[in-house]
Amino acid sequence: MSSRTQYNEKEECKGAQAPKTKVLRQFGPLLVAMVGLPGRGKSVLAKRLSRYLNYTGDKTRVYDISAYRRKHVKEYGSHEMFRADNLPAWRIRQKSFREALEDAAAWLQDSNNNVAILDGPNVSRGQRQEIYDLIYKQLGFRVMFIECVCEDPVLLERNFKEILRYSSDYRDMATEEALKDLTHKMAHYQAQYESPTLGSLWELPCPMVKILDDGDGGIIAHGVNGQKESKILAYISTPKQKQQTLYFSRHGESEYNVIGKIGGNARLSPRGRMYGKALAKHIHALNLPGLQVWTSTLQRTKETVAGIQAPQQHLPELDEIWSGECESLTYEELQERFPKELALRDREKLKYRYPQGESYIDVMCRLIPVLTQLECETNVLTISHQAVLRCVLGYFLETPPDEIPYIHVPLHTIIKLTLKGHSYSMETVKMAIDCVDTNRAKPLNCSENRTAAEALLTLPKHYDSLSNLNNLMSCT
Amino acid sequence: MSSRTQYNEKEECKGAQAPKTKVLRQFGPLLVAMVGLPGRGKSVLAKRLSRYLNYTGDKTRVYDISAYRRKHVKEYGSHEMFRADNLPAWRIRQKSFREALEDAAAWLQDSNNNVAILDGPNVSRGQRQEIYDLIYKQLGFRVMFIECVCEDPVLLERNFKEILRYSSDYRDMATEEALKDLTHKMAHYQAQYESPTLGSLWELPCPMVKILDDGDGGIIAHGVNGQKESKILAYISTPKQKQQTLYFSRHGESEYNVIGKIGGNARLSPRGRMYGKALAKHIHALNLPGLQVWTSTLQRTKETVAGIQAPQQHLPELDEIWSGECESLTYEELQERFPKELALRDREKLKYRYPQGESYIDVMCRLIPVLTQLECETNVLTISHQAVLRCVLGYFLETPPDEIPYIHVPLHTIIKLTLKGHSYSMETVKMAIDCVDTNRAKPLNCSENRTAAEALLTLPKHYDSLSNLNNLMSCT
Repeated sequence: MSSRTQYNEKEECKGAQAPKTKVLRQFGPLLVAMVGLPGRGKSVLAKRLSRYLNYTGDKTRVYDISAYRRKHVKEYGSHEMFRADNLPAWRIRQKSFREALEDAAAWLQDSNNNVAILDGPNVSRGQRQEIYDLIYKQLGFRVMFIECVCEDPVLLERNFKEILRYSSDYRDMATEEALKDLTHKMAHYQAQYESPTLGSLWELPCPMVKILDDGDGGIIAHGVNGQKESKILAYISTPKQKQQTLYFSRHGESEYNVIGKIGGNARLSPRGRMYGKALAKHIHALNLPGLQVWTSTLQRTKETVAGIQAPQQHLPELDEIWSGECESLTYEELQERFPKELALRDREKLKYRYPQGESYIDVMCRLIPVLTQLECETNVLTISHQAVLRCVLGYFLETPPDEIPYIHVPLHTIIKLTLKGHSYSMETVKMAIDCVDTNRAKPLNCSENRTAAEALLTLPKHYDSLSNLNNLMSCT
Repeated sequence: MSSRTQYNEKEECKGAQAPKTKVLRQFGPLLVAMVGLPGRGKSVLAKRLSRYLNYTGDKTRVYDISAYRRKHVKEYGSHEMFRADNLPAWRIRQKSFREALEDAAAWLQDSNNNVAILDGPNVSRGQRQEIYDLIYKQLGFRVMFIECVCEDPVLLERNFKEILRYSSDYRDMATEEALKDLTHKMAHYQAQYESPTLGSLWELPCPMVKILDDGDGGIIAHGVNGQKESKILAYISTPKQKQQTLYFSRHGESEYNVIGKIGGNARLSPRGRMYGKALAKHIHALNLPGLQVWTSTLQRTKETVAGIQAPQQHLPELDEIWSGECESLTYEELQERFPKELALRDREKLKYRYPQGESYIDVMCRLIPVLTQLECETNVLTISHQAVLRCVLGYFLETPPDEIPYIHVPLHTIIKLTLKGHSYSMETVKMAIDCVDTNRAKPLNCSENRTAAEALLTLPKHYDSLSNLNNLMSCT
């Protein structure tokens, strides 16, 4: 996808009146409906998928049926409300299902939106038919079902623990009681479960994907057609890590950082080499099993990890944003030689492309294979660059795209992401080795007619030459 | 993917010595080995997949084991050579298998190459183990198996007919005799077939995908991990058309075409509107079942199909290459205002990006969803633009990327692509309605110091204003 089509424009037929014939739907909005018993990993998958689709240009939202139920039943009582023969409770659950479905349908009718994920058990054939009838027959949008099947007792236990830990239903319940309640709840759903059959027996003329044991047992897919559907299949077919810690850092301070130049392929400054040593010491002390190191192909990232004992890969996808004709210039030189370009960039940093170079969106696109592979790994230390790591953090922390170019990623700082439930938490460790600041905030004045002083107002201090820095270091 | 990583650079670990630990392989070269009886659609799938991977930036080559066998046995005798107990013939087949495998392995060791597809039955567990041992254990590359299973008698009959029609083994045999021979050949392979089992019983620790009935019966995937593998899974999981005719045309001559301007969103010229009418008449006369019309979102394509009775979609992916700051200029103006840019573009037209605009590679990337969806359709008339249709034809006809920007796609011409076996044949119908020529060949002199005359040497004649053309038309 180019930046033009990815974030700016939409096919015109979207959100239009329901088309009369099947052929109009290939590029239209999509509803993904989850199917499966509690504790099968549906919600985690739905939220991961949503993160991936949003980042890759398909505006996506999750509609969680249990959140609707909680609006009607403020305080969670017990598993009794999931019994098939508890008619008043069944009415509430059915009402919640319909409200979530209708909200999802309404959301898809806005032509800015692409995918809605209906997260819930959807265990009965009747519910699935209702989804299909509203979304496909009535609105003319696409529908895809994803069933999570899990029989592995180890995985089930882990999933149950996650529910007890993160579900608001069990926030105020003792662990033992909660586990008992969840087991009963599951039995009630099991009694109502009409698992979709596959092949020619699958009940609806739309794609159906079964994921076995969180993907570890493989997948079975039937009737997958359409671009969004095959993109989703590719994403969900690779089993992701369930527990995961990822480490990130920019390279140590480079000779270009010191003198305020962007891009290039400079070596580390003396302080940057010190950071490399401190980083190696810190990482080795963590004793991470199966540690891997991924860097860009530029020498400042390779030099940074030279002392780390672990398998290393050097990936061009991790190279710094390519600033084309502006490579190796300082911001002062940029302002002098390309004042209009600098103003354009300040105005719309996400989409701005350097002359013969890249934009942040270009970097986001080229990073996708690395990001999705990182989700399948643990204990990877990724050493990259300011703009690239902004895009990486933007993915895992679900930062709105426009804010990605302004995420603060300082030098000489280790960033740790830990998967908790379906979201990532971030910790940072600032190492005690001085370095320049390279974070230039958005200037107030972004017009082409601004003065040089206005353009450079937010530029942090840097040295005029490397020898300045070396003199300073030898004095202290 | 950005243009930088897609065609220029490769991860450094590629083609290096076999890595010592498993973790180094996520982004490395991949061997895809086909598995299945004759007539199950392996070769067609292998060649389609190769076309897709090459276009999307993974340099791919198919190694067809039967082509190696034909080198040793120049003249095809009969099915007898496929009997399990025909030892001399078995030796030749085994030798052919090894030669193809070794050539594929050697090819993957060149760091410019990404994927090798080993096309052949690979029906025995021993052969699959040999593939795995050489490629994964010895070379440290990735391996993935794709098995084609087909039980549908209608599909089988169609596949058999295709083999009789396109296989060089049967070129000189009468149809009835050939069919009998092929049936025997299949029986011999059936006797030697050890179909891979799935789930925990699958014999090798690498991805295995089963495609049922050419994809119509769904797919089963196990152990898919890695970027290339999930990309391949997404591609092969959507069933493609087996018989297919696709129609393409540029919009009718536009007001900008007449006066030699590029880009923009102009309306049709009077001659362009005449073409629209002639096109509708031509297409209606073909009486194509299930006809669909796809256009760009620009008014010149929509106006061109205004008279066609069929469901229409307007896709931004089909919009003309965006020339950024050069939009709505003539080549004369371009040369006057951006002589350096024009020279750069002439020098490397595939990768050249207009200032704040797109390159051909950008267009190729954004077209991928439309191209893969077109493979699932038939009788689609796609109305788009010169640069976009060059990329579209480049995909289906497997044009080397560097030649794509020079493919001749004249105005007022209908292009028909028909799938024959695994490749597409092209026919063109030039409609008898005059129009300007917009095809500017690569100039001999592409240096920045050339004169304006040299830069404009290959520019075809156009009118200075639309009224010139109208006057001309009213005179004739």
